[in-house]
Amino acid sequence: MAPSAQPLTTSVPDEKYANVKWEDLGFGFVRTDNMYVAKCKHGENFQEGSIVPFADFHISPCAAVLHYGQGLYEGLKAYRTEDGRIIIFRPDQNGLRLQAGADRLCMPYPSVDQFVSAIKQVVLANKKWIPPPGKGTLYIRPILFGSGPILGSFPVPEYTFLVFACPVGRYHKDNSGLNLKIEDKVRRAFPSGTGGVKSITNYCPVWKTLAEAKAQGFSDVLFLDAATGKNVEELFASNIFIVKGNVVSTPQISGTILPGVTRKSIIELTRDFGYKVEERVIPVEDLLDSEEVFCTGTAAIVTTIASVTFKDKKSSFKTGEKSLAAKLFATLTDIQMGRVEDTKGWTVEIDRSHQG
Amino acid sequence: MAPSAQPLTTSVPDEKYANVKWEDLGFGFVRTDNMYVAKCKHGENFQEGSIVPFADFHISPCAAVLHYGQGLYEGLKAYRTEDGRIIIFRPDQNGLRLQAGADRLCMPYPSVDQFVSAIKQVVLANKKWIPPPGKGTLYIRPILFGSGPILGSFPVPEYTFLVFACPVGRYHKDNSGLNLKIEDKVRRAFPSGTGGVKSITNYCPVWKTLAEAKAQGFSDVLFLDAATGKNVEELFASNIFIVKGNVVSTPQISGTILPGVTRKSIIELTRDFGYKVEERVIPVEDLLDSEEVFCTGTAAIVTTIASVTFKDKKSSFKTGEKSLAAKLFATLTDIQMGRVEDTKGWTVEIDRSHQG
Ligand SMILES: Cc1ncc(COP(=O)(O)O)c(C=O)c1O
Ligand SMILES: Cc1ncc(COP(=O)(O)O)c(C=O)c1O
Repeated sequence: MAPSAQPLTTSVPDEKYANVKWEDLGFGFVRTDNMYVAKCKHGENFQEGSIVPFADFHISPCAAVLHYGQGLYEGLKAYRTEDGRIIIFRPDQNGLRLQAGADRLCMPYPSVDQFVSAIKQVVLANKKWIPPPGKGTLYIRPILFGSGPILGSFPVPEYTFLVFACPVGRYHKDNSGLNLKIEDKVRRAFPSGTGGVKSITNYCPVWKTLAEAKAQGFSDVLFLDAATGKNVEELFASNIFIVKGNVVSTPQISGTILPGVTRKSIIELTRDFGYKVEERVIPVEDLLDSEEVFCTGTAAIVTTIASVTFKDKKSSFKTGEKSLAAKLFATLTDIQMGRVEDTKGWTVEIDRSHQG
Repeated sequence: MAPSAQPLTTSVPDEKYANVKWEDLGFGFVRTDNMYVAKCKHGENFQEGSIVPFADFHISPCAAVLHYGQGLYEGLKAYRTEDGRIIIFRPDQNGLRLQAGADRLCMPYPSVDQFVSAIKQVVLANKKWIPPPGKGTLYIRPILFGSGPILGSFPVPEYTFLVFACPVGRYHKDNSGLNLKIEDKVRRAFPSGTGGVKSITNYCPVWKTLAEAKAQGFSDVLFLDAATGKNVEELFASNIFIVKGNVVSTPQISGTILPGVTRKSIIELTRDFGYKVEERVIPVEDLLDSEEVFCTGTAAIVTTIASVTFKDKKSSFKTGEKSLAAKLFATLTDIQMGRVEDTKGWTVEIDRSHQG
């Protein structure tokens, strides 16, 4: 998707909404009004931060994140419902995942309450950037990183937790399903590495691979495990599921794939539908042999996979309205958008009282 | 080593030198006067940058380096000679390594000439921070990173190349040789990953392992290869060599270890001494079976390894003045410090004409 470094403005602004052409929204950076910032010194805990205008900030040229990659990010969404409420989806899960990542990368972290409060404050402070129902969502991007100067030796003197948000449309634009390349040389993660947390160190190292696949016409890359090169792991930024008969399978959490919040939710919804769900090792052959394949993620939601290409051989799968992916997409987004009652306790409504 | 976030001041400043207690220098951040900054937009080339006062700088909250780990660093040193010259060691090699890394991480890069010119400018602009001969060196830290905002989609709109410098003393303080832990679970790098370039993504992921080893009393960690877990790779930030009779061996460059500039220089000096040097796969057993072990790096220079501990079993090696490491240390530092004639063309002298 093309990056949107500037807001896509319309000539019909109003009080409730920012000056955005909602129809043209892709998935890229759009500058909004406010962000949340909290800092923490080495040996202390995060205290309540504050909402400040969205702007470039100051960083030491010797900041830990710039030299040693000490950083994590998170991603979740706020939704505007038809009846005018604003809801967010399972923010506690992102807060917990951030904590696991911070522990892995030797950083202090905000409590889950502080995390969720920061998310709510950022959403309210950028309320007019939440797209109208059906036109998109407000993507919220928390980051936690070593901001203090460090050269060669511990400890990092200061950490920063920062949250901003951008209105987004669809992440994958392939309407009829994704065409994946199964990458048979480059791995995303390896046992004992950081693949199981949302470390910034997991992403740029596979950009080249992703860019090459896109240049070849593929929508995304499906990575295999580094230990054997035989088993399916995940896409660049989403988890994978395969369907065969009444059994739905997805790679188990073993430290090399990200434990997606959408993945966890989809497992539960799929079981509710009466399918058997297995979290297990999935050899490429099992994937090629399945009837339907889809991926899940905050950005991808639930996206049908039309084909995978492995060593130049293309295999196609069921897509369309009758697919399980379509049914799961509808059920999940009904909950996320507040169109049905949330019997799971997954959504959190934001109201004015959360401010400040 | 304890971090030095503040300059260690002395009460006897003079015109030639900054206000530093040179005797107390460790290896940590010390704030100096000036830094070099150059920026480059997507699709363009780096132009000549400029020297500005060392200070925190502005960065977008959505900068690529903060979210996806798109960053590299380099490290080299400037030396003040007994006869008052200032020299740097093989800066072209660091410039070439930065280019290889930038290519791997999808970034544009400065030419080697631009790189070397930036280094010289930074050294001259911080001249009084170069320690007196024998009291330490000026460690120069170039970084290259994605500074423009990006969310989910390419390309990164802007890149920054920044160079600063800090006076440093010794990196390892263990005078009688290092005591290494051979890490048998956590790996540093894996085939197809970024271990072969100086990507920021290689460092923080192994901080926890390094910190645990240090807490157990070890000086540093020796990592094994991820593919088999059987072969020696390198330390946290230095390369390893083993000596047996007339043969000196070091792991070959295969994408998972950093091609150290010191490593390359030491290979040449060792051959000059009449040893046979092998770049090859080195099983742990070969290491345990060797007479002498040492590590090399810009920070470590040549450091003797007194012992390695593998699965709780400790093996000791030859140390002291008669060791090959001691001889190599003396020969290399004689060249670096300008105490002998440089017949290799490795050193570059900086004079006033390089300014600006
Ligand atoms: C590597 C990776 N896998 C999977 C996911 C999906 O996780 P979630 O469903 O929590 O968005 C993401 C994105 O967040 C990711 O970066
Ligand atoms: C992982 C790693 N290995 C080896 C080295 C040694 O390289 P050089 O001799 O160029 O400093 C370094 C440090 O720079 C390093 O970070």
